[in-house]
Amino acid sequence: MPSRDIQAADPVRILQDLIRCPSVTPAEGGALAYLESVLAPAGFAVERPVFSEAGTPDVENLFATIGSGAPHFVFAGHTDVVPPGDATLWSHPAFGGDIENGLLYGRGAVDMKGGIAAFVAAALDFANGGLRAGTISLLITGDEEGPSLNGTVKLLDWAAKRGHRFDAAIVGEPTNPNRLGEAIKVGRRGSLSGTITVHGRQGHVAYPHLAVNPVPQLVRLVRRLTAEALDQGSEHFDASNLEFVGIHVDNHAWNVIPAEARARFNVRFNDQWTRDTLSAWIEARLDEAAGNEIAYELDFEPGWSASFLTRSDALIGTLSAAIEAETGVQPALSTSGGTSDARFIKDYCPVVEFGLVGQTMHQADERVAVEDLVKLKAIYRRFLDGYFA
Amino acid sequence: MPSRDIQAADPVRILQDLIRCPSVTPAEGGALAYLESVLAPAGFAVERPVFSEAGTPDVENLFATIGSGAPHFVFAGHTDVVPPGDATLWSHPAFGGDIENGLLYGRGAVDMKGGIAAFVAAALDFANGGLRAGTISLLITGDEEGPSLNGTVKLLDWAAKRGHRFDAAIVGEPTNPNRLGEAIKVGRRGSLSGTITVHGRQGHVAYPHLAVNPVPQLVRLVRRLTAEALDQGSEHFDASNLEFVGIHVDNHAWNVIPAEARARFNVRFNDQWTRDTLSAWIEARLDEAAGNEIAYELDFEPGWSASFLTRSDALIGTLSAAIEAETGVQPALSTSGGTSDARFIKDYCPVVEFGLVGQTMHQADERVAVEDLVKLKAIYRRFLDGYFA
Repeated sequence: MPSRDIQAADPVRILQDLIRCPSVTPAEGGALAYLESVLAPAGFAVERPVFSEAGTPDVENLFATIGSGAPHFVFAGHTDVVPPGDATLWSHPAFGGDIENGLLYGRGAVDMKGGIAAFVAAALDFANGGLRAGTISLLITGDEEGPSLNGTVKLLDWAAKRGHRFDAAIVGEPTNPNRLGEAIKVGRRGSLSGTITVHGRQGHVAYPHLAVNPVPQLVRLVRRLTAEALDQGSEHFDASNLEFVGIHVDNHAWNVIPAEARARFNVRFNDQWTRDTLSAWIEARLDEAAGNEIAYELDFEPGWSASFLTRSDALIGTLSAAIEAETGVQPALSTSGGTSDARFIKDYCPVVEFGLVGQTMHQADERVAVEDLVKLKAIYRRFLDGYFA
Repeated sequence: MPSRDIQAADPVRILQDLIRCPSVTPAEGGALAYLESVLAPAGFAVERPVFSEAGTPDVENLFATIGSGAPHFVFAGHTDVVPPGDATLWSHPAFGGDIENGLLYGRGAVDMKGGIAAFVAAALDFANGGLRAGTISLLITGDEEGPSLNGTVKLLDWAAKRGHRFDAAIVGEPTNPNRLGEAIKVGRRGSLSGTITVHGRQGHVAYPHLAVNPVPQLVRLVRRLTAEALDQGSEHFDASNLEFVGIHVDNHAWNVIPAEARARFNVRFNDQWTRDTLSAWIEARLDEAAGNEIAYELDFEPGWSASFLTRSDALIGTLSAAIEAETGVQPALSTSGGTSDARFIKDYCPVVEFGLVGQTMHQADERVAVEDLVKLKAIYRRFLDGYFA
């Protein structure tokens, strides 16, 4: 169990306590209970809804709110972490929270218990004196690194049904490639996944004229989809990109021409595309390569997301100013990289991501500079001052 | 248990009794015991060696011999059968041996308990009066449809160590595409299998510049190997042919660029190639397509075989004449199709394959025309008369 006798507004102590909760997805690991024990005594109304879905583990979440009325600002994040992997690769225990030479070690140090520790500390300070009108909420899930079905997406719906209307949100994910302050993520490319299945005719390798081998046919389709770039990028976004993530034939024999071959791909697409224009682009190229010779199916995965770009100056301008004041760095407004729960929050209010330096995330010896952690709390605190001014 | 009160030289009764032994590889199913019970009382010396190899099931085999000295002729075959599959697809029980409208039904009817029944009947008749000088042996395995490790290859070695020197062999596999007498198989293409492994660099699909996707690279190599024919065939052989039988990436995620991709292929190659010239042809094309950009490995499977062509007139001429006399058909001398245990026997003596019509082999309702079975016995018997004349 984490210790409870903390300095409430010390992000270092909060992060150490959080790291000591082994909250590998989908385990709560004591992390949300700990946050409740910190937030509730400070006046936050804390609720911990559990969400379920057939075929996935139940997941605990936390919603904490203080104040009333507009504007309603949200810090969002996740206490779940990816597994530590091989323990022998860690120089300090993955769930220890040790500090050495100004670095705090542990799984989640930057992704993203560190971000949570910083915004919890900032919110506690601000609620204790700074908050005169408006509402601050913390929206924290335990299902971001997992299937993301019983986390933020349901917590947002749950909060909306209880009458909460959010005006802006910051997700505390690590956004800086090398140095604190470099980048705010103000949007993300969309994501669409699909499977191409080619149907051949099974047969014996010694009688190829009696069979149709789907492998060279699939190869032709894969070649066609990788032959040209989707675009060259746009004002705010990197180029769209299609990657084949898998290719598969269900055949263990050496003398059998298989009946079927499949390839799986994922596209990250920018604001030049919608799901419809993108799928049409893919289908046109597959049809062209297939001609009358190749019998194929194309199936898209249900879990796609559109690209988005947040333009709120109340959010981005205020946050940029706070970052520059604390770090001396003018942050780039970036849309690169993978998805986060911001893709769900964007449907409710303007949202950006800003957090720590991501270099060690998901690796052994994940760690954060104590100085960065303290500075991130200061940035968040300065943002709140500006946002609620 | 099969009935024992048979007419020894009736191939129909022998086949029915054999079909009633459920000898799905590697099970003996009573089939070899039955053959011993038929052959031993007729004067054959019967032995039933069991062969083993780590990681594979033990397999029973049978070697029966009668007579002495040269010439030493061998009938070879296998009593093991492939599984019957879905029982509801059979109009007669797979292990029943039912006869209806002149057709005898059951797993193994043509592949190749039918061939065994015909040559056992012919050998029994010939031994009972026709055999004045020389030796007839029956070399029968229970491991032809399986890994072929504990069958013919070990039985040949076993017999050689006991001093047996064979002069010619017929394997009773089904060789006729449509009609009894159409084709003797006088050779086979060789077979070589290999795996191409492309090493990329794993990464997140949202950061493709930090990863190297091995899938499009493997696709390039596959394209190169399928872009041109190996040859156009030769005097006695069909064209060589390379088929990709599998392609695989070990990745279940949609957002991960995989580290590695593999493709498996098999080549059936004719007498224009040796293993060395063939592997050099493959390597040259892969190297050309890979250039400096693609890191790949090529591994050949140990179990390869060379092409072979049997030219013995004592064997082929005599068999062709017997076939023409019994069926009125002049058989084609073919080298097409897949491998059989002839690929092992060819290292000991001239060998050809001749048996029933193969159309229903490995299918539901596998069946043989009773007339064909009787005629095949007559062909074998007439061959023995000619060969030992």
